[in-house]
Amino acid sequence: MPLPESERILLGPGPSLVSPRVMRAMAAPVLSHLDPELMAMMDQMRDQLRRVFRAPAGSFACAVSGTGTSAMEMAVANLVDHKTRVLSVVGGYFADRVAGMCQRYGGQVRRLEYEWGRAVDPDAVRRALSQNGADVVTVVHAETSTGVLNPIEQVAAIAREHGALVIVDAVTSLGGHRLEVEQWGIGACYSCAQKCIGAPSGMAPIVFSPDALARRVASRSFSFDLGLLEDYWVRRKYHHTICASLVYALREALSMVEEEGLEARWTRHRDHHTTLATGLGAIGLSLLPPESDRLWTLNAVRVPDDIDEAAVRAQLLVRFNIEVGAGLGPLAGKIWRVGLMGAGSSPAIVVLLLGALESVLRAQRRG
Amino acid sequence: MPLPESERILLGPGPSLVSPRVMRAMAAPVLSHLDPELMAMMDQMRDQLRRVFRAPAGSFACAVSGTGTSAMEMAVANLVDHKTRVLSVVGGYFADRVAGMCQRYGGQVRRLEYEWGRAVDPDAVRRALSQNGADVVTVVHAETSTGVLNPIEQVAAIAREHGALVIVDAVTSLGGHRLEVEQWGIGACYSCAQKCIGAPSGMAPIVFSPDALARRVASRSFSFDLGLLEDYWVRRKYHHTICASLVYALREALSMVEEEGLEARWTRHRDHHTTLATGLGAIGLSLLPPESDRLWTLNAVRVPDDIDEAAVRAQLLVRFNIEVGAGLGPLAGKIWRVGLMGAGSSPAIVVLLLGALESVLRAQRRG
Repeated sequence: MPLPESERILLGPGPSLVSPRVMRAMAAPVLSHLDPELMAMMDQMRDQLRRVFRAPAGSFACAVSGTGTSAMEMAVANLVDHKTRVLSVVGGYFADRVAGMCQRYGGQVRRLEYEWGRAVDPDAVRRALSQNGADVVTVVHAETSTGVLNPIEQVAAIAREHGALVIVDAVTSLGGHRLEVEQWGIGACYSCAQKCIGAPSGMAPIVFSPDALARRVASRSFSFDLGLLEDYWVRRKYHHTICASLVYALREALSMVEEEGLEARWTRHRDHHTTLATGLGAIGLSLLPPESDRLWTLNAVRVPDDIDEAAVRAQLLVRFNIEVGAGLGPLAGKIWRVGLMGAGSSPAIVVLLLGALESVLRAQRRG
Repeated sequence: MPLPESERILLGPGPSLVSPRVMRAMAAPVLSHLDPELMAMMDQMRDQLRRVFRAPAGSFACAVSGTGTSAMEMAVANLVDHKTRVLSVVGGYFADRVAGMCQRYGGQVRRLEYEWGRAVDPDAVRRALSQNGADVVTVVHAETSTGVLNPIEQVAAIAREHGALVIVDAVTSLGGHRLEVEQWGIGACYSCAQKCIGAPSGMAPIVFSPDALARRVASRSFSFDLGLLEDYWVRRKYHHTICASLVYALREALSMVEEEGLEARWTRHRDHHTTLATGLGAIGLSLLPPESDRLWTLNAVRVPDDIDEAAVRAQLLVRFNIEVGAGLGPLAGKIWRVGLMGAGSSPAIVVLLLGALESVLRAQRRG
């Protein structure tokens, strides 16, 4: 199997398109994991991440060597053990994954289930916490499986009223939707490199607030041990061999985020989502979540009854070199997941996707 | 801090020099983690890894998203739990790390300690197993902290006589020293990408023999869960967003290993190590391990009493753009760790390093 010769147009749930500037950074000569120059870049990256997460002074931000799933495991491994009462707010595949991870780490997990394809009702969180309390609340900001944006500001405020620390999954929102770790009072928050930030996958941003740092538990995982990773990132003590190429790429992508400006980037993601939603309506397609609950970054598009879901994805790939995602779990076969993230959130991409989709649907209906 | 403008000459304990061919592969357009083309490349990589590990039919080989430490954790997480009696053979920093990881995963760990800087005596392993038995034996093939090669063939044979499964750390040997997973009867074996294989770090090769697959335990880690990773690599079920760029790089590096031929590559590593050892003797330096116990890939060079260890490393870096490693744990300040691995195991590198080292030592002694 040869290397790809042309740029795949990545409009699935991630990875998203990587800009040439980030690819060039990744091609710089490799430095070792303890090289003073690399560690200086990593210091810069910690500052970038604190700013992009909008995290308070005294937070610890870094990028885990691994993917968003690794960062999820790092958050759980250091904040949940067998004594921890966890309320997991679950309305999608990734919220379910966090809840399961808390169970693996011994947590006493209660699940507040809500409908896949809708945002959670903050009052339901309040009732659950009033009845049973919790030490930790897990909630997903941008549920990648359903295209739903959750009201984190309200959920976090309620959790804090009840003395619970909030772990927020921002894998599909960081850099694409407003996210305010300090202002909203989030305890720990993690994301990934390959969606709205625009780097390849392989390093995953994470931040622990001072409150979370104070409430840490002993990590059973070595790779994701917060104390050992603080030793490495801050005190330059060897822990693992971080990939310099990925540090270069993520730092460059974060620089591009800050040059554009976070607010401007959020607006860009909103605007192209709106254009796409209108265009989908014009070709007879609709989105799963109601308008109030929709992500800008990941669009859950309902598959019409007369359409073969997988065949459409295959045709988009073969004819147009476009990738969109399939549904996960109970939504498999029922939705396409269309990401407009990072470099993929652009006017050209929107018209390209709409044109290609219309062409494929028309061809399939003609038989 | 700008990106590096020149190639750092990486002669520490890893990462080693990455060939231009591997860097070019890494620059190919990104594919997603479920792209049929990427998954076809990953199928090829599983075959490459089985061959490079010399693993038996029915083994499961893959590359963990993470570093050698992640692969170590994957081996432990799936083979050690609270019911597992572990004998950890410990004569260096990385053997100690494996033992500690087994404890984190609940294992009943006994440690067979031996001298840092010497190979383990297989008879000591036999005595330890005869007295107390074990379900799992952990041992490091190439101890990166001491420059010592351990007699894995004998240790594995003894472990099998006693019914124990052997986990072998081959982080600094795969691709540089003979390693025979099938012939030696190794249960699980892991390595890294950035040493003798010659790719950037970020993906770590691992293999489980059929015996190990049959003796797996429930993994407490989600990221390193063997069953979930089999689902992903074999059955194409989503688990995490693997980094396509690193897949390209590692596959290319493995192709280069196979084009050279494993035996030829081992011989190359041996020959340049021998030349280096002779040259070091000529400038008054000696190696920590006795000749019979020495690695070819990583040379533990004793620091002379009159020499400032850190100043030599700093001068090599500043004047010659050469990186060598410091000692770890009890060997900090006492040795330099000089890696001749992958593309770094060449005649030009040996003469460059010897010349630079001699120059720096002479300058320091002149004051």
